[in-house]
Amino acid sequence: MSSKWVYSFGEGRAEGRAEMKNLLGGKGANLAEMSNLGLPVPPGFTITTEVCTWFYANGRSYPADLRAQVDAALAAVEAVVGMRFGDARNPLLVSVRSGARASMPGMMDTVLNLGLTDATVQGLADRSGDARFAYDSYRRFIQMYGNVVLGVEHHHFEEVLEEVKRERDYTFDTELKAEDWQAVIAGYKAVVDRTLGRPFPQDPVEQLWGAIGAVFGSWMNQRAITYRKLHDIPADWGTAVNVQAMVFGNMGDDCATGVAFTRNPSTGENRFYGEYLINAQGEDVVAGIRTPQHLTIAGKEANGSTLPSMEESMPEVFRQLDAVRLKLERHYRDMQDIEFTVQQSKLYMLQTRTGKRTAAAALKIAVDMAREGLIDERTAVLRIEPKSLDQLLHPTLDPKAKKQIIAKGPAGLAGAASGKVVFTAEEAERLSELGESVILCRVETSPEDIHGMHAARGILTTRGGMTSHAAVVARGMGRACVAGAGELRIDYKRGTMLVRGVEVKAGDILTIDGSTGEVMLGEVPTIQPELSGDFALLMGWADRFRRMKVRTNAETPLDARTARKFGAEGIGLSRTEHMFFDADRIVAVRGMILADTEAGRRAALARIEPMQRQDFVELFKIMTGLPVTIRLLDPPLHEFLPASEAEMEEVAASTGTDLQKVQQRAHQLHEANPMLGHRGCRLGISYPEIYEMQARAIFEAAVVVFQETGETVTPEIMIPLVGTRKELDILKAVIDRVATEVSQRSNRPLDYLVGTMIELPRAALRAAEIARTAEFFSFGTNDLTQTTFGISRDDAASFLPDYQRTGIFEQDPFVTLDTDGVGELVQIAAERGRGARPGIKLGICGEHGGDPSSIYFCEKVGLDYVSCSPYRVPIARLAAAQAAILGEKAASEA
Amino acid sequence: MSSKWVYSFGEGRAEGRAEMKNLLGGKGANLAEMSNLGLPVPPGFTITTEVCTWFYANGRSYPADLRAQVDAALAAVEAVVGMRFGDARNPLLVSVRSGARASMPGMMDTVLNLGLTDATVQGLADRSGDARFAYDSYRRFIQMYGNVVLGVEHHHFEEVLEEVKRERDYTFDTELKAEDWQAVIAGYKAVVDRTLGRPFPQDPVEQLWGAIGAVFGSWMNQRAITYRKLHDIPADWGTAVNVQAMVFGNMGDDCATGVAFTRNPSTGENRFYGEYLINAQGEDVVAGIRTPQHLTIAGKEANGSTLPSMEESMPEVFRQLDAVRLKLERHYRDMQDIEFTVQQSKLYMLQTRTGKRTAAAALKIAVDMAREGLIDERTAVLRIEPKSLDQLLHPTLDPKAKKQIIAKGPAGLAGAASGKVVFTAEEAERLSELGESVILCRVETSPEDIHGMHAARGILTTRGGMTSHAAVVARGMGRACVAGAGELRIDYKRGTMLVRGVEVKAGDILTIDGSTGEVMLGEVPTIQPELSGDFALLMGWADRFRRMKVRTNAETPLDARTARKFGAEGIGLSRTEHMFFDADRIVAVRGMILADTEAGRRAALARIEPMQRQDFVELFKIMTGLPVTIRLLDPPLHEFLPASEAEMEEVAASTGTDLQKVQQRAHQLHEANPMLGHRGCRLGISYPEIYEMQARAIFEAAVVVFQETGETVTPEIMIPLVGTRKELDILKAVIDRVATEVSQRSNRPLDYLVGTMIELPRAALRAAEIARTAEFFSFGTNDLTQTTFGISRDDAASFLPDYQRTGIFEQDPFVTLDTDGVGELVQIAAERGRGARPGIKLGICGEHGGDPSSIYFCEKVGLDYVSCSPYRVPIARLAAAQAAILGEKAASEA
Repeated sequence: MSSKWVYSFGEGRAEGRAEMKNLLGGKGANLAEMSNLGLPVPPGFTITTEVCTWFYANGRSYPADLRAQVDAALAAVEAVVGMRFGDARNPLLVSVRSGARASMPGMMDTVLNLGLTDATVQGLADRSGDARFAYDSYRRFIQMYGNVVLGVEHHHFEEVLEEVKRERDYTFDTELKAEDWQAVIAGYKAVVDRTLGRPFPQDPVEQLWGAIGAVFGSWMNQRAITYRKLHDIPADWGTAVNVQAMVFGNMGDDCATGVAFTRNPSTGENRFYGEYLINAQGEDVVAGIRTPQHLTIAGKEANGSTLPSMEESMPEVFRQLDAVRLKLERHYRDMQDIEFTVQQSKLYMLQTRTGKRTAAAALKIAVDMAREGLIDERTAVLRIEPKSLDQLLHPTLDPKAKKQIIAKGPAGLAGAASGKVVFTAEEAERLSELGESVILCRVETSPEDIHGMHAARGILTTRGGMTSHAAVVARGMGRACVAGAGELRIDYKRGTMLVRGVEVKAGDILTIDGSTGEVMLGEVPTIQPELSGDFALLMGWADRFRRMKVRTNAETPLDARTARKFGAEGIGLSRTEHMFFDADRIVAVRGMILADTEAGRRAALARIEPMQRQDFVELFKIMTGLPVTIRLLDPPLHEFLPASEAEMEEVAASTGTDLQKVQQRAHQLHEANPMLGHRGCRLGISYPEIYEMQARAIFEAAVVVFQETGETVTPEIMIPLVGTRKELDILKAVIDRVATEVSQRSNRPLDYLVGTMIELPRAALRAAEIARTAEFFSFGTNDLTQTTFGISRDDAASFLPDYQRTGIFEQDPFVTLDTDGVGELVQIAAERGRGARPGIKLGICGEHGGDPSSIYFCEKVGLDYVSCSPYRVPIARLAAAQAAILGEKAASEA
Repeated sequence: MSSKWVYSFGEGRAEGRAEMKNLLGGKGANLAEMSNLGLPVPPGFTITTEVCTWFYANGRSYPADLRAQVDAALAAVEAVVGMRFGDARNPLLVSVRSGARASMPGMMDTVLNLGLTDATVQGLADRSGDARFAYDSYRRFIQMYGNVVLGVEHHHFEEVLEEVKRERDYTFDTELKAEDWQAVIAGYKAVVDRTLGRPFPQDPVEQLWGAIGAVFGSWMNQRAITYRKLHDIPADWGTAVNVQAMVFGNMGDDCATGVAFTRNPSTGENRFYGEYLINAQGEDVVAGIRTPQHLTIAGKEANGSTLPSMEESMPEVFRQLDAVRLKLERHYRDMQDIEFTVQQSKLYMLQTRTGKRTAAAALKIAVDMAREGLIDERTAVLRIEPKSLDQLLHPTLDPKAKKQIIAKGPAGLAGAASGKVVFTAEEAERLSELGESVILCRVETSPEDIHGMHAARGILTTRGGMTSHAAVVARGMGRACVAGAGELRIDYKRGTMLVRGVEVKAGDILTIDGSTGEVMLGEVPTIQPELSGDFALLMGWADRFRRMKVRTNAETPLDARTARKFGAEGIGLSRTEHMFFDADRIVAVRGMILADTEAGRRAALARIEPMQRQDFVELFKIMTGLPVTIRLLDPPLHEFLPASEAEMEEVAASTGTDLQKVQQRAHQLHEANPMLGHRGCRLGISYPEIYEMQARAIFEAAVVVFQETGETVTPEIMIPLVGTRKELDILKAVIDRVATEVSQRSNRPLDYLVGTMIELPRAALRAAEIARTAEFFSFGTNDLTQTTFGISRDDAASFLPDYQRTGIFEQDPFVTLDTDGVGELVQIAAERGRGARPGIKLGICGEHGGDPSSIYFCEKVGLDYVSCSPYRVPIARLAAAQAAILGEKAASEA
């Protein structure tokens, strides 16, 4: 069987296309595409990724017919450029570059100026009229080829160069003249000869095959293997090899090289944006040795530069480049990142690819392009990475400000903030009431710290991570947070924090940046987010395409209002226990927990009930017309237990018991594994009076809201941690009884649903049975992940790093839903639940409800809504829209 | 549609059969069966359970054609006995009794002597020639009918009787003469009249329908509802009603009544065994007012009774009864529990049913009947309740001994023991080495107490329950155990135990009985179990029919030897961490846990390795020729952490670190939910050197055993807590590497398997993937139950009682496998595992591996073996055999 292994491009046509990335790699496919567009691409050819696969499947050898195809392709290049490979008078030089399906910058090898030999270097000198240029090019080639292909270590070459410079008393490379470079070349060749025991190859064809082999070989070097592992790129994709005629931007002052974006990648403004250098090579622009000049007059002026722009210095070439820009945008329908070279006033395009951009730019570009008619609104919606919205919603550090970084936590949380250091939630509240900005610094946070976290601008913990209590709560509140800056040592007693000899005291100013995880001394200026009209426009399009509703997890009025502002369509999870930590209630709550009789519990509950009712009244008013899901008391009781003797005394006093009894009971309630202990609906089964009180507070609040506003509220009451239908039956009976009582007493009919969290594997498996009682399911994927994996989120920090290092977890399963395991349970539950109760309402309220790739999964399973922290609501709206659009596409393609 | 609602029986034939229990209830079906056998059954008829269902489905009314069928059946009875219902001179009297599919003793209502009226009582007096008997019967009827059918409270009747006795200055009922009973009857009738406003019914047909209605009505009384709930009897089964001609055992000295077993129900001996009373009613035998006499001369002599046996006093009737006994046994092919009445020298059979028996009797009866050819060996195997073997394997209390009970724990553990009270494992070991019997008393036990538990005769804890550490370990060791005698308060400091004012000191003698949960002061004599030849014979049959292998969970040589003696076919779970608690190793183990560098861990591991190797050498030698599954280190690390400062100092000294560092590290290792923490294979991923050491110890032990005995050992190395295939891949690579090293160094080929526990829901779901690496699966159903339900076994005690009370859990899911939830995961894993690796070895090693109903499930899923504690091995062998036999039956019937 004979295959096509080589694809030619250049001179206004090509055998490949942009869609052939899998075969030609990204670079090769785009070089072909640009050729087809008639753009000035130096001619060349691509050896396909299939050759790479063949190479590794056959002991690093090549297909028999490859050589003939390469020879033919090379001959075609010679014909186009009118030069011959190895011709001493008019030599064709080529570059050899790798190019995989996905970009792997710097991971694999490149060889430039290939084809230069002792003979051809003369021809290059003659034809360019610049001997220094020719010899410099040759010595660069020997150095690059010697290192990359022949494996001679770099320092050998460096030593030769240094020796020549020392002999001649030069400081800079620029001082070397043509004859100096000749001396260096002689030294380089000697190095190769000495190291390898054979001379540097003088046959260009031998050079070419050496370089091709090196590129294929570099696919399996350690650097590339590691990169692929980190970026989840399969090894069997392989790389292509691109061989292309060299063009030179450093052949004189009519030469130049540059990089550009077709629009501004920071702001998204529709203006040509780029830099160039006269008489320079590509790497000079990037390396920052010379100051690059702006492409356009506008760019030059905006940056106060005095160096001439390309628009001024090379107006004709600039005009051609600007035309290329328009052509590329119209063709690719996206902002492009391009590389070009001007050789003796002729423009050559060397690369085009989709340009990276900031979140703000992505938004503007997507909306502008839709307005310009380049893309449709669906495509615009797909163009924004949902997670990047975090950048638009939170304050960010001024990128120009100076920073004195003293510690780092994990990157990836949103927001930046400055403020005075405080070490307790109480102090945070006190100072904030005085109008101060504070950063709350704790070893770790617990539900008791929530009021302080609310009061603070930012939260800093020394323990924890992306899914720790601090991170989760901060995300929900939109607070800046660095969770788990492990080098910091907090000493609560002394009121200080120590890191590498630096001591931070209470009252000192600190700045934290959640996105980078950095902790900085002093105040670093932040930039407040401004939500442009484009944002609202794009989110409006997203909402049109979205199938799933987006609700929020909220229990405070502030959170609920924030979420509504961000577009939440109801509350998917209101954790009633979060309402229990307020200073004015916690004593009553503790009294309830510690009571060892029903009468004692009822007494404490009676004190809590009016406050709880008021909570619901407020929530219902904020969410009028929208569904509100309220989860009855869930958490492990130990979260409420008094820890200190002072707290125990307070409880003893308020309940009229003696301290010893309180201590005893607290000890009795201690659990070995509270996560799997007496919590969730198990509390409701043991102490029905608790759920009874909560149900009454909910129904009475609904009545109050109706009386005050005339609006009907439909609470969705959610029973947590159900594992059997019977639990739900028993507790639903309690709720129904209370509803009847309230309804009769108030003479109001009550509309409500009773449903359950699906957060235990058993509940997922028994969903058919449970759905006969449950009117809705909400997937509690936090706990479902904990039980399915048998991993405690609180304790995972001790081995998660090992699990990520060894590749066992590609993502933290508490951040991104494990679709294979946990996801199968969600799917089973959804199917069985629907089977038993067609149309049963299905949602998700775990942390995953705000994670885009988990949201895609929810769309696939067909959930009715996702629920997430207020600040994640826009992210979820966008992700849900993308999921719906991609789902439609997949369906129409199937 | 007309249905048959009524089935007649009596006079040597019947319309029903024993197989018609669902329709006729147990009592009705057996009355019919006895009639068909030609036994003397008083004639009667059964109104079917379908009438009960109809009754409740139709507002407590009857099918239209029922009355005609009852009339016809009643007429048939009249014809047989030659009496007429309501005939003043020769009245037919009947009993009306309920009879459901399952026996519900005392739960529903019975009416005797129905048909007596002011008119018919005369006829009864005349025909019996005993007026006192007739009036006594009539007043009993009014009282019973008045209470059961008419709802007149009991005390009203009591008051009348007391009044009559007071007037006449009588003390005992026996003093009342015929005319006195007439006065009582007048009073009773007045009570009914006064209470209901209408007279006591004098129409026998009205009486009959009243009684039928009352029996059906009693199916839904609270008592019956509760009983059904407790015994899992569906309400829609309904009850039948049996109407039967009365016979009287109290009509004179040629009358008698009795109960008997066709064989001895305590020993199983094939001898007629029963009691009777002359001139008495059935309830007199049961009530214990008069001393019952023995049926047989042999029985009388064996019990040193002086009262004449029935064999002597009524030789002819006895001969008939003995013939009935043989007929029933030959017919039912099982030991029967019968009731009979002799009326004027004529024998009547009133009931037969399968008799309850002790474990020893069950064994002997089954084996004897098989020998006698009454049943085949398969049936004999099915006749023994596997759990009852516990009674045969453990010492039991002498039932005649006096007991001073001071506290109670849950019943249901095996064994009884006496000994001196000790409060620490160390003291238990010390005294036992001096030859003393000890009872180890602890609040709860932990793995560190194991050596003391071994040394003790019995273990008593004040916390815990049937599946607590103490119970599980004691079961495995065959120790007597009372786990969770909650009223006891142990004061370790003072060395005392307090319960309701009684103080027990260290050194006092205590007796505990695991089967009842009783704790007794002083020594109560125990009876050592004797395993008869019958036991070995029956177990041999069981082994022939068994498909699944039975292995044991064992790590000590003692346990392994015990299990082999009980027939274990290998080790299914050897928990290597249990080997770590010995006094001479725990310091090294702690040193390893607390080391914060690999070098530190390796140093500690080097000290442990030779001991670990020796453990395996011993196990392998005991189990030569059998598979041995070794689970690598699994438990939450905190189990090993030093708790006291003294222990920390010891670790600090032995590892040359300072105390503060040890404390810090111990604090760092503390986990919120250790069950879901850094344990199982997560330890192997973080610290591969631990598993490396264990693998080396295993392989080197295999080499040593081969060198010493010439036997080849095939260890099955098991990785715990796997959730992803990758974990297994990484750790299998470590094990394979070590195997190669040991094999090369010792110049021996090594045979071994590497597999995994399936104990996380995710592992069950991903079984197909995992099976591509795992060579066997062992279902760790303890942890799988914990994670599937989200319940910590250590903490469940606080709500399990509520869950059992409310019927959420019918069984403790840690005792009996939850086939609906956990079982589905086991099934999924088995199917997917086999799909990926046909023939993959599948076993179970959780506590459920020794639970009969869980074993039936394992057979259904097709596991290859079950593994359980040594003392459960015989139970598992028997249960596995029964499961296989029932499986065959089901298959052949399908």
